[in-house]
Amino acid sequence: MFTKLRRLLLGPALPSERIAHERLTKVQALAVLSSDALSSVAYATEEILLVLVLAGSGALGLSLPIALGIALLLLIVAISYYQTVHAYPSGGGAYLVTRENLGTLPSLIAGAALLTDYVLTVAVSISAGVAAITSAFPGLFPLRVWLALVAVVFVTLMNLRGVRESGRVFAVPTYFFIAIIFLLIGTALARWLMGVPVPVAIEATVASGAAQGLTVFLVLRAFASGCTALTGVEAISDGVPVFKQPEAKNAGKTLLWMAGILISMFLGITFLAHQFGITPHEGKTVVSQLAQAVFGLSPVYYAIQAATALILLLAANTSFSDFPRLAMWMARDRFLPRQLTNLGDRLVYANGILLLGGLASVLVILFGASTHALIPLYAVGVFISFTLNQAGMVRRWLKLRSPGWRRSAMINGVGAIATGVVLLVVATTKFTHGAWIVLILLVFLVWVFRTIHRHYQEVGQQLSLRQRWPTPVHRHTVIVPVGGLHRGVLKAVQYAQNLNGDLHVVTVETDPQATQNLVAYWKETLPEIPLQVLPSPYRSVVGPLMQLVDHFVQQEGDYVTLVLPEFVPARWWHHLLHNETAWLLKLALLYGRRDWRGRFHIITDVPFYLSQ
Amino acid sequence: MFTKLRRLLLGPALPSERIAHERLTKVQALAVLSSDALSSVAYATEEILLVLVLAGSGALGLSLPIALGIALLLLIVAISYYQTVHAYPSGGGAYLVTRENLGTLPSLIAGAALLTDYVLTVAVSISAGVAAITSAFPGLFPLRVWLALVAVVFVTLMNLRGVRESGRVFAVPTYFFIAIIFLLIGTALARWLMGVPVPVAIEATVASGAAQGLTVFLVLRAFASGCTALTGVEAISDGVPVFKQPEAKNAGKTLLWMAGILISMFLGITFLAHQFGITPHEGKTVVSQLAQAVFGLSPVYYAIQAATALILLLAANTSFSDFPRLAMWMARDRFLPRQLTNLGDRLVYANGILLLGGLASVLVILFGASTHALIPLYAVGVFISFTLNQAGMVRRWLKLRSPGWRRSAMINGVGAIATGVVLLVVATTKFTHGAWIVLILLVFLVWVFRTIHRHYQEVGQQLSLRQRWPTPVHRHTVIVPVGGLHRGVLKAVQYAQNLNGDLHVVTVETDPQATQNLVAYWKETLPEIPLQVLPSPYRSVVGPLMQLVDHFVQQEGDYVTLVLPEFVPARWWHHLLHNETAWLLKLALLYGRRDWRGRFHIITDVPFYLSQ
Repeated sequence: MFTKLRRLLLGPALPSERIAHERLTKVQALAVLSSDALSSVAYATEEILLVLVLAGSGALGLSLPIALGIALLLLIVAISYYQTVHAYPSGGGAYLVTRENLGTLPSLIAGAALLTDYVLTVAVSISAGVAAITSAFPGLFPLRVWLALVAVVFVTLMNLRGVRESGRVFAVPTYFFIAIIFLLIGTALARWLMGVPVPVAIEATVASGAAQGLTVFLVLRAFASGCTALTGVEAISDGVPVFKQPEAKNAGKTLLWMAGILISMFLGITFLAHQFGITPHEGKTVVSQLAQAVFGLSPVYYAIQAATALILLLAANTSFSDFPRLAMWMARDRFLPRQLTNLGDRLVYANGILLLGGLASVLVILFGASTHALIPLYAVGVFISFTLNQAGMVRRWLKLRSPGWRRSAMINGVGAIATGVVLLVVATTKFTHGAWIVLILLVFLVWVFRTIHRHYQEVGQQLSLRQRWPTPVHRHTVIVPVGGLHRGVLKAVQYAQNLNGDLHVVTVETDPQATQNLVAYWKETLPEIPLQVLPSPYRSVVGPLMQLVDHFVQQEGDYVTLVLPEFVPARWWHHLLHNETAWLLKLALLYGRRDWRGRFHIITDVPFYLSQ
Repeated sequence: MFTKLRRLLLGPALPSERIAHERLTKVQALAVLSSDALSSVAYATEEILLVLVLAGSGALGLSLPIALGIALLLLIVAISYYQTVHAYPSGGGAYLVTRENLGTLPSLIAGAALLTDYVLTVAVSISAGVAAITSAFPGLFPLRVWLALVAVVFVTLMNLRGVRESGRVFAVPTYFFIAIIFLLIGTALARWLMGVPVPVAIEATVASGAAQGLTVFLVLRAFASGCTALTGVEAISDGVPVFKQPEAKNAGKTLLWMAGILISMFLGITFLAHQFGITPHEGKTVVSQLAQAVFGLSPVYYAIQAATALILLLAANTSFSDFPRLAMWMARDRFLPRQLTNLGDRLVYANGILLLGGLASVLVILFGASTHALIPLYAVGVFISFTLNQAGMVRRWLKLRSPGWRRSAMINGVGAIATGVVLLVVATTKFTHGAWIVLILLVFLVWVFRTIHRHYQEVGQQLSLRQRWPTPVHRHTVIVPVGGLHRGVLKAVQYAQNLNGDLHVVTVETDPQATQNLVAYWKETLPEIPLQVLPSPYRSVVGPLMQLVDHFVQQEGDYVTLVLPEFVPARWWHHLLHNETAWLLKLALLYGRRDWRGRFHIITDVPFYLSQ
């Protein structure tokens, strides 16, 4: 039944040979991998204006030069990652680049930052998407946490089904969002060029007086806030292997396309917002104000809102491509549990997908699906990974000195410095709002990675054949503990007789009368096999058997096999009707005494299947 | 650590040889086994008056003849049980008597009735006791469910420690209750005889007008209500084996003593309540009113209230002697899970005690520790068992015709008819108040008993050696599935080589590259042992192995042993860091496919202990 439900939700199992076909075209990959980056258009301009407005409406004009600066930064980051994509065609990303060029500890920091960021992307995007829906339909507001959880489960299932299906599902809304935003920008630009009277800003009265002076710090803060536009840019370089061959070339082109689209939309909206005299205020986003100014409350306006909500929901999907892949890499390097390297029967890293879905659900519940509570935790991780990635690339050019290395190193160097400065600004201005949580979390995660790594190393040493081969079997004793004489017991005894060892059939005397009866019946039925009676004054079955095993295991190479006759009932509730002595014995023998560990005792279940 | 806590709470394990010493003297047994019966004095008189008062204050005078009738009934029941105790010195009780004389179905009804009643006794007594405490300290009222649960846990632990300890703990409050009630009756009688002016009833104004006519039915109802005085009378005849030798004689004497004390207290209180002109009303019990009339609000009054609360709490303890014993008998007859026959390491039927504690806790929680909600469910079970027990005894005398059988049969016959009539009255008058729940529950329990019995019978048949001996081992194949080559794997292979069977070391190919490396390394390290590669296009490890087992098991007598190299990590969280393939395999092989059941495949774990 479980298997059927699984097949229904996830589709049939896929053979390994189909792995090469499960790749994305450039058009599909753009939809799958760039929704995170593109969706940031929905709030990046607003973040800039929200800071500038503190210095009065007059300062809003600075938004355009700041946006140009961010666009330049975005271009630098994109070109830098374009270099990464070609340098690391099997999938770049901050973790791999840092590991190769800067060493283990920086790579663990980058890995922790990225993993944290992917989880946050899911939680933030889905929360924001749900908030967009509940703004349109206020009746759904009390259900927002449930809606967000349903969305997380939906995206998780889509990704468990496999990557091509998600490409299909997500292409339509992504391109719809791009198209409708360009329609908005184009229409607004046309009106502005034709000199059609610009509508008066809907509520221009807000914050016309200056609350703060226009300092360099404030401009920097505005710049840093606008840098949320860069979140998700690294997705394509992390996801090179999902592209159709030639992967690196396709990924590089897609990356540049994405950067171009993102920069156009971002600059267009920022420029027009200023031309249309829009100021940020609560309850109505900047994009929404612009859309209303251009289209009024027409169907096109609602379509823009719906597309925004959808792209935010889909942005979460980017993380479902990246998180499991990064987790797989880190698990391969033994910094995470190795189960994360298992390719599931739908050819996806199912454990990573489930882990991400679970963690994001926890965040959604903890923060009550509130975007505002989650946002301050968000950008720190991104800029840590940007900085480390680009610093790593610089180191790489200095090492390789391949043709054109000076130019490349300079591009990456500028990027590293720029993102490093932004990282400092973001961490400083957001520290008290929640960035401290992320910084503590990163330290904790790095500690976890190293603890796991140490464990695997220790296990590897203990298991190494180089160190010492295990002692071969020297003396083999076979013990069959019995509590009665019936077909199940007889089957176990017959099996034990056939094993190559000294056979001891024993019964533990917990009730003298019952034991006496058993011994008599045994002598009559199986006279050729002696039955040994173990006294047990405290009526414990496990204790005397453990003493017996102790007796036969004196030195290395002494093996004891306990052959346990065990019922397998036909129905689960039948377990309640039988003494689960076998189970207790196994528990005691495997985990019971510390000093037993390393002893050579083997437990063999001889199952007897009950048919009713 | 778990063991230490256990020893701290329960005391050291006791050897079986001490079982004969763990018996009760008559004085101890009276305390342990009669608190249920004696505590009913606290409410029996009140129950009569509460019915009579419906016909006006004038009808209250009828309480004395009714109480005399109940005392007579109690005497008849006690004498009947006195006969039972001697006829069944190994412990009588309705279940055994009915089983022997009336057959299986009536005995199952009696067993169900008694088990239900024991659980209700615990829940009712503890709830009532807690209510007495919270009446004195109203601040504790919001905590009543917690208090009741603490009391249930306390009594459960006391009984898990063992029977002699409970005898000691409970003797003091029981005898204190008896002494202080006789002090109350004696003082009141002395005042009445000396003609000291009887104080005016505190609130004589209540219900002076008649609400109903004084019908025969009403008198019968009053009689039936007063019969709650009889609950718990059967405890001693159920508990004969806990007495010191000679058990039957000691138990018989104790039973008569208990009946005498109970009748004296019950008649005394009923007589004096009438003489002192006490009418029942809410908020102050009849005993409490009488005590206040005699002693005023002095320390003696509070002592009476405290003693009443204590005896009610201790009444629960009676069930902790009887429930596990009856459950053990029924489990021995295979109507209940056989785990209930296990004598724990403190020489008590620990599973029965825990089951009773658990069920009573559930009742306490479900009914919010409210006595009023529980009481209507209560008496039906008692009178079912009385009637069946005495009908069984009548049948016994008619069968045996031992000396004096006519007189004995007549005594039991009168008892059976009287309790049968009371049963009908109780069931009728309380039907809509909750008796229907008990009647449905009894039917359900009888069905459960019979289902369990059928299961054990079927298992017995399947296991019977008379039917057919299992086929001996004919062909033995040993399969070692490996995923790598290390010390743990080598140990398993060495062990498997030593078993008497055809060895097949196999690896499942989920990742062609990894498999290729393993095969090369294997050939280099263990050239003498061939490694077989099983292809797995869907990357499942379990599927191909199950097919391989299928291949080697063609007919009966074909045994396959799967030798699984298995890690035993040093810390629990290390389990998260290893693929639990062995665990999945075992699950699949034991429970996986229906048509596999009855096949001969054996699973052997070769543990490899990790030290860090």
